[in-house]
Amino acid sequence: MTDPRTEVFREILSTTRSIRRIAPDEVPDDVLDRVLEASTWAPSGGNRQPWRLIVVRDRATKQAISDLYAEEWKKYVDFNIARLPERTPATEQRVRDAMTIGGDLASGLADVPVLAVFLHDPSMLYVTDAGWGRHPVVGGASLYPAVQNLLVAARAEGLGGVLTTIVCAREPDMRAILGFPESWGVHALVPLGWPKGRHGPLRRAPLTEMVMRERWRD
Amino acid sequence: MTDPRTEVFREILSTTRSIRRIAPDEVPDDVLDRVLEASTWAPSGGNRQPWRLIVVRDRATKQAISDLYAEEWKKYVDFNIARLPERTPATEQRVRDAMTIGGDLASGLADVPVLAVFLHDPSMLYVTDAGWGRHPVVGGASLYPAVQNLLVAARAEGLGGVLTTIVCAREPDMRAILGFPESWGVHALVPLGWPKGRHGPLRRAPLTEMVMRERWRD
Repeated sequence: MTDPRTEVFREILSTTRSIRRIAPDEVPDDVLDRVLEASTWAPSGGNRQPWRLIVVRDRATKQAISDLYAEEWKKYVDFNIARLPERTPATEQRVRDAMTIGGDLASGLADVPVLAVFLHDPSMLYVTDAGWGRHPVVGGASLYPAVQNLLVAARAEGLGGVLTTIVCAREPDMRAILGFPESWGVHALVPLGWPKGRHGPLRRAPLTEMVMRERWRD
Repeated sequence: MTDPRTEVFREILSTTRSIRRIAPDEVPDDVLDRVLEASTWAPSGGNRQPWRLIVVRDRATKQAISDLYAEEWKKYVDFNIARLPERTPATEQRVRDAMTIGGDLASGLADVPVLAVFLHDPSMLYVTDAGWGRHPVVGGASLYPAVQNLLVAARAEGLGGVLTTIVCAREPDMRAILGFPESWGVHALVPLGWPKGRHGPLRRAPLTEMVMRERWRD
């Protein structure tokens, strides 16, 4: 028998899906603070916590971010559509539906009650995969655990959100809006609020496809 | 009043610390599979799940990885020590203690029951921060949420582990050991097992230091 506390934890974690349809209702300060606190619990290299979070609720600021987001969204749709031919028709329909819902989020971002903007200090990252002739990812090991903690803690409060990164392509504009230093970068934007739809279920590849034993197998 | 289920979730999440002192006792298959499954629940860009996980329990394979890890660990200690002068004496002592415990892990990695090696396909990542003259991190947005899910789900089962990235600096050697394709990269190694010490508490910067409202403030 599994511990009932473990089961509660797993039930919440297993129904944490990306929420893009968010009601305009306000998030109470105490609920929001609990969610923000959970993000600080995440690990980081050498416990340096090389990130900060700006919570945006001001309508004009949200609108300015929304405008950038909507412009970048179109480019991202092209990237996803380009990857469609290799997919089954059912998957293709799901991707197209996701693009539609994402487009609605892009155009309605100013109506979402909270935008959480994550910033990082690149000088505090120990990047071990920079020598392989491709874009490194390892700096993210000290950054995205905190974003994921925010999302799962939000789910535990009944809130929903989605990890987005497309505004990172507009960092100078984001800097002009939010006033952060030249030495800091943007690595995520999480729209956060009460879901219009339900939490869960998830659509994920089965464990047998994602996990191998002892060594690689095709 | 907060929902008791929310409180259970928060108590587990808030005591998920990096566990580096791990007992050699085996992890039962069913427990391990629940933890692995939780990693697949994480979000990724376009739900592409551009990663795979190799679970290593074979002693010879663990020893080969351990040898690489121990070599890279020394370089990482230098990086951390170089960042000490700006710290308080209390912080300095904590960093030195962490370095010692990390060194023990490095030399004892073959005794840890499970090594989870995370691999990714760079061609499936949409990297939006590659134009800023520094190492990008955004590819990690589709990768490290799954690693964090593994760690928090492990904690919920009483297991412990730690997100490490230093073997990423030895990717060709890791490829020779595990047999993954040239087109895939390593982005994390998580040693996993039953903790010798206790879960929690965490040492983190306070919320007021990590979170700002509406815009950057120094």
